[in-house]
Amino acid sequence: MKKLSLLVCIACAIGFAQNSDEKQVKNIYSTSLLDGQSYAWLDHLSNKIGGRLSGSENAAKAVQYTKAELENLGLDKVWLQEVMVPKWERGKAEEAYIVDGNNKIQVPICALGGSVATKNGGIEAEVIEVKNFEDLKLLGKEKIEGKIVFYNRPMQADLISTFEAYGGCVDQRYAGAKEAIQYGAVGVVVRSMNLRLDDYPHTGAMSYGDIAVSDRIPAAAISTKGAELLSKQLKSNSKTKFMFSQHCKQYEDVLSHNVIGEIKGSEFPNEIIIVGGHLDSWDLGDGSHDDGAGVVQSMDVVRLLKKTGYQPKRTIRVVLFMNEENGLRGGRKYAEVAKEKGEKHIFALESDAGGFTPRGFSFDCSEENFAQVQGWRQLFKPYLIHYFEKGGSGADIGPLKDDQIVLAGLRPDSQRYFDHHHASNDTFDAVNKRELELGAATMTSLVYLFDKYGIKTSQKIKR
Amino acid sequence: MKKLSLLVCIACAIGFAQNSDEKQVKNIYSTSLLDGQSYAWLDHLSNKIGGRLSGSENAAKAVQYTKAELENLGLDKVWLQEVMVPKWERGKAEEAYIVDGNNKIQVPICALGGSVATKNGGIEAEVIEVKNFEDLKLLGKEKIEGKIVFYNRPMQADLISTFEAYGGCVDQRYAGAKEAIQYGAVGVVVRSMNLRLDDYPHTGAMSYGDIAVSDRIPAAAISTKGAELLSKQLKSNSKTKFMFSQHCKQYEDVLSHNVIGEIKGSEFPNEIIIVGGHLDSWDLGDGSHDDGAGVVQSMDVVRLLKKTGYQPKRTIRVVLFMNEENGLRGGRKYAEVAKEKGEKHIFALESDAGGFTPRGFSFDCSEENFAQVQGWRQLFKPYLIHYFEKGGSGADIGPLKDDQIVLAGLRPDSQRYFDHHHASNDTFDAVNKRELELGAATMTSLVYLFDKYGIKTSQKIKR
Repeated sequence: MKKLSLLVCIACAIGFAQNSDEKQVKNIYSTSLLDGQSYAWLDHLSNKIGGRLSGSENAAKAVQYTKAELENLGLDKVWLQEVMVPKWERGKAEEAYIVDGNNKIQVPICALGGSVATKNGGIEAEVIEVKNFEDLKLLGKEKIEGKIVFYNRPMQADLISTFEAYGGCVDQRYAGAKEAIQYGAVGVVVRSMNLRLDDYPHTGAMSYGDIAVSDRIPAAAISTKGAELLSKQLKSNSKTKFMFSQHCKQYEDVLSHNVIGEIKGSEFPNEIIIVGGHLDSWDLGDGSHDDGAGVVQSMDVVRLLKKTGYQPKRTIRVVLFMNEENGLRGGRKYAEVAKEKGEKHIFALESDAGGFTPRGFSFDCSEENFAQVQGWRQLFKPYLIHYFEKGGSGADIGPLKDDQIVLAGLRPDSQRYFDHHHASNDTFDAVNKRELELGAATMTSLVYLFDKYGIKTSQKIKR
Repeated sequence: MKKLSLLVCIACAIGFAQNSDEKQVKNIYSTSLLDGQSYAWLDHLSNKIGGRLSGSENAAKAVQYTKAELENLGLDKVWLQEVMVPKWERGKAEEAYIVDGNNKIQVPICALGGSVATKNGGIEAEVIEVKNFEDLKLLGKEKIEGKIVFYNRPMQADLISTFEAYGGCVDQRYAGAKEAIQYGAVGVVVRSMNLRLDDYPHTGAMSYGDIAVSDRIPAAAISTKGAELLSKQLKSNSKTKFMFSQHCKQYEDVLSHNVIGEIKGSEFPNEIIIVGGHLDSWDLGDGSHDDGAGVVQSMDVVRLLKKTGYQPKRTIRVVLFMNEENGLRGGRKYAEVAKEKGEKHIFALESDAGGFTPRGFSFDCSEENFAQVQGWRQLFKPYLIHYFEKGGSGADIGPLKDDQIVLAGLRPDSQRYFDHHHASNDTFDAVNKRELELGAATMTSLVYLFDKYGIKTSQKIKR
């Protein structure tokens, strides 16, 4: 009988915990949908400030704005963390033409982030179309030298995750110039990382590796429709030329900041949970999805915890990282300082996949901790949050990785993300208020659970 | 050993079936994403034809267009099913003003479908704001007579399913005029069924019940921003008047058609599976989400089955219903004819919740058949299809309901649906190609499974 009573007590306790978790999660979702702040914050960040490329005046404005807003929330501490960031500017608008004899057809391009400018007046050369770096090898210097290399491998449309399709293509953008230089190319044009056929060129980071500045060649993205047109022209006339001019410039590194705010834990203040997104964006749109959404959702996580009357046991930090797009300096700096201080981070969550309807999370953690998370799935079911898988988390929190932390990334619906990613149509109107708020609530609920239950640490004993 | 061998054989057979199902489902998704037809069809339906209100010229064009396209697919049979439908026209654009003394503020309204016109020059009267029919009762004739009743109960934002929020509000639109007439109101203005604050008025069906034509009062929808403004004005001046004019007209019923195409079953031709959406739409936008998406997805179901080389065992019919929006005559007619002919329908699937990312299905069926469906869940997991719940199906297939059929509705992500529903921004550009194609593939996969395995029918024996 005693055993039975004990079992009944345990069952009651579990039942009570589940019930109180259900209530708190419901409270979080309702508060976000009825009284969320993320959409108003995003409105300001997107429409009052705009694109926030690292080292720009707008990036500095965004630092000041978000710091002030976090201070308004009455957190225990809000501060800026200094970080040196690269500064690259696009300069005046790019121009490009497909040149077929006397026939010139204008097409939409944009310089890739980090590219050098063309010489004044632009460059014009014959074009060689390739699908990958293997093609360069097969063609050899003979067929490439003096030409513009046109990378035209499209994102694979039959992959369900558009991020997987992106991952399968982005080498063309990131390393395309570096590779083409080996074969004497004079420029690089890359099909935009976009699954849709449209007129938006999509920028993004590229690298020349350790190639000397004097040997670098300009690299641009062309819209998907432009890429289709250029490819068609080349099929009808292999002597078709391409002309493009761009005026971008790399400056010396400049001082910028991560923005950090925290609520001190009431029971385990030395166990730190962070939630974040990146404050910088590309310069073409206003960075609403990438990653204004992640920034304001992360800010709303600490606000929603307070608003719902929850007192965290552990220290909860919101971290708005600088320079995810072209350097990851903010993410690296945060981890470096955390290590120096001997801080113990138990959970880090990043939102950097757009402000669309949340579907769940991807976890980078031990099997044991993943099993713990699986136990919380049912709590999310009423909110249609169903995706709990192992995988990557987020670029900014990556440098925190060790075997004592759970890293996670919010996973929103990905189908529309690359329609807007790094392009001039990544704007406020493409974000739906409810979808954004559901994301904030989903993140807050997971932070709440990690705060309440901590992480299983038996693996520490084993090691 | 014999028993063991048998078990191994059974296990192999189940394994083989699962494996072949996985392959076929993958084939369906890939074909839809790489070589789908739904988006091109929707482009024509939306941009070449446009809004397709029952009885209109556009509705007739849509009948001819979809019939011709189904014929191009090489189905075994394509035909039109005659159905008499109501014909209502909006006439020239509506006008409305909030009148506060000499101050007139224009606000966006539209006549509700089925409403009578105002008298020439419009009507102007004081306004009484209510939240529901209970409020009318409390106010009574004394406070309502001679006034315009303003229904201003918003959709409940903290419900996760926007359809649930819609269901909790739409009585204002559907029966608001009929109720207000009892208290001597001279007109009705209803807050648009929209969770967003914007300037689009949303139309939709309303009914006067059996109130004589001469006693009917005009009913309009006002945009959500307009509703907020009117409410604010009334708070500052309860004598604020509202003026609106509309020019709509109800005609005699006219002849229209359901469009039907079928692939004859190779083994059980008398067991019929149908998949459909509704061809009519409201007149304000081009009906891309409601329900152009469902129409073209349903057409692509039969095309994708053929394209992937699948020969159905059962008869698969695509049914494009006429007049879902303001009469349901097409759905009723189809069921009536099916009954007359003694046709045996085993499964009906409707897509009428927008062309957004599919999340799963809602099933109206026996527990036994629902258990069968649950067995297929794993097949859908790679496509992030996770929602398999009991609930409603679709308005058009509802009249087929009996205890021998499984009814189902596709359930796409619902967050953005009511931003567009019945409004002038329900247009082609709001539909994402991949989301539409994923929906078509999800529907095709379920149709494939029901075709291959049929439905469990043990309940027939029990009864």
